[in-house]
Amino acid sequence: MTYQQIDHVGIAVTDLDSGIARYQELLGVSPSVRKRMEKDGIEAAMLDLGSTHVELIAPIGPESAISGFLEKRGEGMHHVAYRVDDIRAALAQLRGQGARLLDEEPRVGVMGHLVAFIHPKSAGGVLTELVEVHP
Amino acid sequence: MTYQQIDHVGIAVTDLDSGIARYQELLGVSPSVRKRMEKDGIEAAMLDLGSTHVELIAPIGPESAISGFLEKRGEGMHHVAYRVDDIRAALAQLRGQGARLLDEEPRVGVMGHLVAFIHPKSAGGVLTELVEVHP
Repeated sequence: MTYQQIDHVGIAVTDLDSGIARYQELLGVSPSVRKRMEKDGIEAAMLDLGSTHVELIAPIGPESAISGFLEKRGEGMHHVAYRVDDIRAALAQLRGQGARLLDEEPRVGVMGHLVAFIHPKSAGGVLTELVEVHP
Repeated sequence: MTYQQIDHVGIAVTDLDSGIARYQELLGVSPSVRKRMEKDGIEAAMLDLGSTHVELIAPIGPESAISGFLEKRGEGMHHVAYRVDDIRAALAQLRGQGARLLDEEPRVGVMGHLVAFIHPKSAGGVLTELVEVHP
């Protein structure tokens, strides 16, 4: 099986500090990683639950990749990420099925793993991420 | 730690058969469980990925608990569920924090586990479910 498990859920928040405070209270864990991704205009924090994670994502400027999402939808679920054995093989298979890929090639994500996004139109309305873990 | 891992993500679809077909193609797995929940007006299917699951949920009538969601938002992410050791202890803790609980007492979910929902207002805009697994 190419797909191993849910790797994380991505949750959009307007302010990262208050988002972390709320999720620390809810889940009882502190972020293991906090990182600014200048190119995407976001700052993200990862809270670990076993081998799964909750990724909180906040904009760091008006040009952020998630500002539009927050304006339209407000805070909430942003994406679901699945861990795969071989991200290039998974992308090739999806391409063959006619899926709409947002990343034709894998890129390096918040945690340093290889990631690629699939358009919600090809995943039942859900922005979907593939993650190939590089320990 | 009370929270073990992400148990599943719930994805709302308008038609369960076509939702299953789409997710079978995306994830390469067939549902392990398919069940009608007459009281909630929904039919659900579980696709297993390791110890995590994708739950597809479709309405079985106009009075369904998710018809309003589908009308307003369309198909997509509906909820996130976290596996906990002791659901009653988790609910008591959340109640103590002033969280808005949709289930004051645990009830039996699609998989036969004990479940309870937390209002999105108390979880950063995300409809959140707790699951205490009963094997």
